[in-house]
Amino acid sequence: ILKKRIAVLPGDGIGPEVCKEAIKVLEAVSERFGHQFEFDTQLMGACAIDATGDPLPEKTLDACLNADAILLGAIGDPKYDNNPAAKVRPEQGLLRLRKSLGLYANIRPVTAYDVLLEHSPLKNNRIKGADMLIFRELTGGIYFGDKGRTENGAYDHCTYSKEEIVRVTHLAFQAAQTRRKKLTLVDKANVLETSRLWREVVQEISPEYSDVAVDYLFVDNAAMQVILNPKQFDVILTENMFGDIISDEASVIAGSLGLLPSASVGDKLALFEPIHGSFPQAKGKNIANPIATILSAAMLLEHFELQKEADLVKEAVQNALDKKVLTPELNSTSAYTTEQVGSFIAYYV
Amino acid sequence: ILKKRIAVLPGDGIGPEVCKEAIKVLEAVSERFGHQFEFDTQLMGACAIDATGDPLPEKTLDACLNADAILLGAIGDPKYDNNPAAKVRPEQGLLRLRKSLGLYANIRPVTAYDVLLEHSPLKNNRIKGADMLIFRELTGGIYFGDKGRTENGAYDHCTYSKEEIVRVTHLAFQAAQTRRKKLTLVDKANVLETSRLWREVVQEISPEYSDVAVDYLFVDNAAMQVILNPKQFDVILTENMFGDIISDEASVIAGSLGLLPSASVGDKLALFEPIHGSFPQAKGKNIANPIATILSAAMLLEHFELQKEADLVKEAVQNALDKKVLTPELNSTSAYTTEQVGSFIAYYV
Ligand SMILES: CC(C)[C@H](C(=O)O)[C@@H](O)C(=O)O
Ligand SMILES: CC(C)[C@H](C(=O)O)[C@@H](O)C(=O)O
Repeated sequence: ILKKRIAVLPGDGIGPEVCKEAIKVLEAVSERFGHQFEFDTQLMGACAIDATGDPLPEKTLDACLNADAILLGAIGDPKYDNNPAAKVRPEQGLLRLRKSLGLYANIRPVTAYDVLLEHSPLKNNRIKGADMLIFRELTGGIYFGDKGRTENGAYDHCTYSKEEIVRVTHLAFQAAQTRRKKLTLVDKANVLETSRLWREVVQEISPEYSDVAVDYLFVDNAAMQVILNPKQFDVILTENMFGDIISDEASVIAGSLGLLPSASVGDKLALFEPIHGSFPQAKGKNIANPIATILSAAMLLEHFELQKEADLVKEAVQNALDKKVLTPELNSTSAYTTEQVGSFIAYYV
Repeated sequence: ILKKRIAVLPGDGIGPEVCKEAIKVLEAVSERFGHQFEFDTQLMGACAIDATGDPLPEKTLDACLNADAILLGAIGDPKYDNNPAAKVRPEQGLLRLRKSLGLYANIRPVTAYDVLLEHSPLKNNRIKGADMLIFRELTGGIYFGDKGRTENGAYDHCTYSKEEIVRVTHLAFQAAQTRRKKLTLVDKANVLETSRLWREVVQEISPEYSDVAVDYLFVDNAAMQVILNPKQFDVILTENMFGDIISDEASVIAGSLGLLPSASVGDKLALFEPIHGSFPQAKGKNIANPIATILSAAMLLEHFELQKEADLVKEAVQNALDKKVLTPELNSTSAYTTEQVGSFIAYYV
């Protein structure tokens, strides 16, 4: 019997709806296996700005710091997007949360689901069997450096300390050891000094993982290779900004953003969230795909070292895929609602 | 009758081979139309380091400054790539050349060629008819900011002045006016101050081009959209680093890197080059595809306002595509050599 406290940040747009289904599944798991999960729901993002003026209120941060893990829906609202002058933005809450909790490694598995091959924009023979794990550094780089305006311009500083690179590199190598034992560093070492430091650190650490084969790709080439030949990749390791771009790009392999989970981990805490955004157009329509959030909950269970439970959730998702119990974007002829998909998966558990 | 001096920088790897074919085509044009093109061939890249210690010798830069246009093959050699400590790198020559000549706008057309649809990794119905023009800012941003090491780390500074954004933005809008009248700015305005400046400048300038519809995409989303639905794009405008990534990514639409030309233009000078690299494995084998360089030469002719001549070259390329007079990567059963493809195209002219 396991007792865990989970902070839940439903966020904006479809966030609350997909979180609700993930909690449904986690409750089914706790009931079946006799665990005790306590959910502590808090505001973050645009909804938090609306309610408190702050995208990450103190109370929310405290709840996260007191939790064993965090489940996040999605944040963002169009009213903030095209206003470059807006002083407070939902994204600031997310960035501050990552930094305050020390969530330095964003981990995204990308797999081509057989039943969804037809939905991918890529030719099926290129992606069938693709299975990669992307490690994106999440609390450094140009996201968190000095930024501001000068008299006639603007600047953003990208910085990396050796230590920031070392810790995520170890996680990526360790993951590669449990998989196909290949690690690809994506950088721009022919131009950037920070990238040259990344390459040095990875070269330095790689002898400690002598069973893992390492290669290096410039980010422009990587952006092509991910599409041309995704099966060549096992673990991809990269810095914050490149990881943002490459991991969203790689999502096209799965055939739907609605299936892709992610974990953001630090030395103490970990946060789990779907990679899709808040999709405001779908808000309240009961059409959003809850699977990415449910699979994020499965990653959360793995983080609690509940592997059997996590596997069961993944099996339940596969069953929904096989039986086509899916939301409209993946099943246009006989679509199910967000709630129906969630319940179907929870029932299997 | 037109008299023009063209500086030729064949560079490394397959660069000299593909340049030779482009010159063959330009000579056929000058003969047919009675123009006088004078070619001034100079060293740049790894070959220049080997010969002089400098990737961009003074003599090369002078030749470029004295030319009416520049044709570049490709630069880069693997012996410099995995050595983060190398003090002199071929790429430095290219970056210095762009900066010294003030080539602030890199322009890349990406079209899905009907005869090559089968070679693209994307499903054909997604790309058939795709036709976009990418404007990448080329002499600012993180490429040219301060960079260096600190005691325990490294940094790269990204800066943009308003003026640097303004000039390339005007070029992009003007191009959009001659096309489908749509411009998409790709940035990361939810995180970067420089991106917010880009968005402000584009918003400020857009009323001057009221016939052009403007939209804004975050770079992570753009990296997906380029693959999910490339036909939505007409002109894409973006900063240096994002442009490097997105334009290479978009090349997969064409079915082959070997077809894609580019122009890098400033207020006085312009340089034309294929987007592919130096492809060292193919060097000297007479198998490299010369079409990207030949189409770069066609862009050079347009720059000289020789539209009829440029159109003829493009027609000749289309004829080679239709008749499948193509190098091995596009014609595995009855491949032609680099020289044969070049001669076939030159003969048509
Ligand atoms: C919302 C935004 C700040 C964020 C990022 O760029 O990190 C998002 O794109 C992500 O990938 O989680
Ligand atoms: C070789 C390299 C420095 C260059 C760049 O990043 O600009 C290349 O990738 C390009 O796109 O021309």
